[in-house]
Amino acid sequence: MMTHILTLWGFLLSATSICVVAAAAPDHSAVKPSTREGGWMKRHEQFNQKVKANQGNIDLIFVGDSITQGWEGQGKDVWEKYYSHRKPLNLGIGGDRTQHVLWRLDNGNIEGIQPKVAVVMIGTNNSGNDRNSAGEIVDGIKAIVSKLRRKLPETKVLLLAVFPRGEVFNDQRGNILQVNQVIRKLHDGEHVHFLDIGYRFIDKDGTIPRAIMPDFLHFSTPGYGVWAKAIENKLSSLLGDSPVNVPNARINGAWTFSIGGPNGQVDSSMKLKKNGARVYGNIAMGEDREFELLNGGIFANHIEFTIRRNRPQGGEAIYRFTGSLEGERIEGEITAEMDGGKITQEWSATKN
Amino acid sequence: MMTHILTLWGFLLSATSICVVAAAAPDHSAVKPSTREGGWMKRHEQFNQKVKANQGNIDLIFVGDSITQGWEGQGKDVWEKYYSHRKPLNLGIGGDRTQHVLWRLDNGNIEGIQPKVAVVMIGTNNSGNDRNSAGEIVDGIKAIVSKLRRKLPETKVLLLAVFPRGEVFNDQRGNILQVNQVIRKLHDGEHVHFLDIGYRFIDKDGTIPRAIMPDFLHFSTPGYGVWAKAIENKLSSLLGDSPVNVPNARINGAWTFSIGGPNGQVDSSMKLKKNGARVYGNIAMGEDREFELLNGGIFANHIEFTIRRNRPQGGEAIYRFTGSLEGERIEGEITAEMDGGKITQEWSATKN
Repeated sequence: MMTHILTLWGFLLSATSICVVAAAAPDHSAVKPSTREGGWMKRHEQFNQKVKANQGNIDLIFVGDSITQGWEGQGKDVWEKYYSHRKPLNLGIGGDRTQHVLWRLDNGNIEGIQPKVAVVMIGTNNSGNDRNSAGEIVDGIKAIVSKLRRKLPETKVLLLAVFPRGEVFNDQRGNILQVNQVIRKLHDGEHVHFLDIGYRFIDKDGTIPRAIMPDFLHFSTPGYGVWAKAIENKLSSLLGDSPVNVPNARINGAWTFSIGGPNGQVDSSMKLKKNGARVYGNIAMGEDREFELLNGGIFANHIEFTIRRNRPQGGEAIYRFTGSLEGERIEGEITAEMDGGKITQEWSATKN
Repeated sequence: MMTHILTLWGFLLSATSICVVAAAAPDHSAVKPSTREGGWMKRHEQFNQKVKANQGNIDLIFVGDSITQGWEGQGKDVWEKYYSHRKPLNLGIGGDRTQHVLWRLDNGNIEGIQPKVAVVMIGTNNSGNDRNSAGEIVDGIKAIVSKLRRKLPETKVLLLAVFPRGEVFNDQRGNILQVNQVIRKLHDGEHVHFLDIGYRFIDKDGTIPRAIMPDFLHFSTPGYGVWAKAIENKLSSLLGDSPVNVPNARINGAWTFSIGGPNGQVDSSMKLKKNGARVYGNIAMGEDREFELLNGGIFANHIEFTIRRNRPQGGEAIYRFTGSLEGERIEGEITAEMDGGKITQEWSATKN
């Protein structure tokens, strides 16, 4: 036993000092500021012009990629209702990865402005195709948050978990979620606020509904509605204003659906049911014909759904319905691609 | 244009009714109740005996696998402080997958008891080695929650996100996180409460510290401390009692470290710093020898850390320190494996 004590004791006497190895700063594509080709530089410079023209008049910025840029497309109506009164600026560019946002933040996109809040959702384009590892994407997002904090010390960062993508469970989603599990640690409750709303875009079996993301990456109008609604309380509290309250559309129930036919208007019965941002139901024609509404979505007074049919001559035809709800009346348009041509027709519906 | 209207109109007249296909009940290993070999049945029957002997006297159950079973091992001290006064029962069996828990719930483990809360963390053993897909694990967890709800309608289920595993980012973690993103949707705020505390077990670079999970799957005592602390407010609110308050150990600062040597006690200086459940610091010997404390953890008055040294004769020696803190004194044991033998020695420290 004395030998053992001697041996153990020996380690204290014989050891040399231990050096602590400092963690090296990350050095990979996700953190190297860089530019892109195509229309990118043009859009970037438009941002700079807007920023120059609106010094002191920008309270809210959205920083990101195509999913953020899409607030100007499918997200337009939602943006109008939730953000247009808040002196906002959309700083999203389709295809951007963390390194491109890093470059933009250093080259004019936030120069001379003092927004109250920056909503950040970035990184999905770094994932997939083995572009960057989860760890590298984390580095990229950290670098963006650090840069925002350094350049805009008064701005609160609302950092969103990277949204899910792909119709069903897939490795890319898994990588993104590993990124999210780490970046949530950037939340300090004061300058940086983390919010994970990704689960709101998937169904109970893990699939992403087309009504929310028609291509399983980008949002429909109702999808943007889900996003806006999910961050509204937090955003409003960070901005210090009142939460936007978008009234729920009253679409549940029986409707009369009308479409022009070769011999004048034809009516049929339609049933609609809303669950969150989704719309379910059917259009019945006569006794034995019923079309189920597929991929139905709703945001405020904007409604959309799809109908599919097997054509008698073979193949499938897909009809996309969009409409605006005013009071108890819907007016809209049906678009179908058929025999190489695009067909558009008006439809309407009134509540029974 | 008339042709187009005719064509579009035609779909309403020519279509046959669309059948809604009902979702089939899942049918795969993760949802098929099954037993296991080895000591499993014995432990299962011990549960049944405890349950029979304590009818009406069990308020809190933990349902799970080895990570839950470990409350009886490394988690013992934490269990004692947080749960022993709450009429608890540990229903964890090492290696269990969802299907084994399903079998146990039907075969006596919850028969005749009415716990107030069931803490559930299960599914990690279904993951990896391509055992079950993320979707199948979701099914398994859903089936367990449904069974608990049906058999114990008055019991509130505190469903925990499956914990991360593996030292660094890895596909298995990604799969588990996809499971978590879906099972959080089981949260109804009334009977089922979902809590995701997994991020608390990983570091800012995504690694799991050994101080929390020495094997990157199972917890150390401080790891169980992190778990207990993270669910305490929620658990206490579900139980309707007062949150347990475990005072923070006051270990920050300078200490005098003592160890017996061949010529009597030798003192040296030690610095300790606590951050959450982790302990950092060093032990200095003379002027040029300093040992960094590695993988340090603390829960309440239980402290542990590791010291490594390169031996003069080659190879590395690892010394594991454990200790109990009482007031401003630590008393503990050092264990080292060396030359095939195991060496144990006492150590102590007092605050300067």
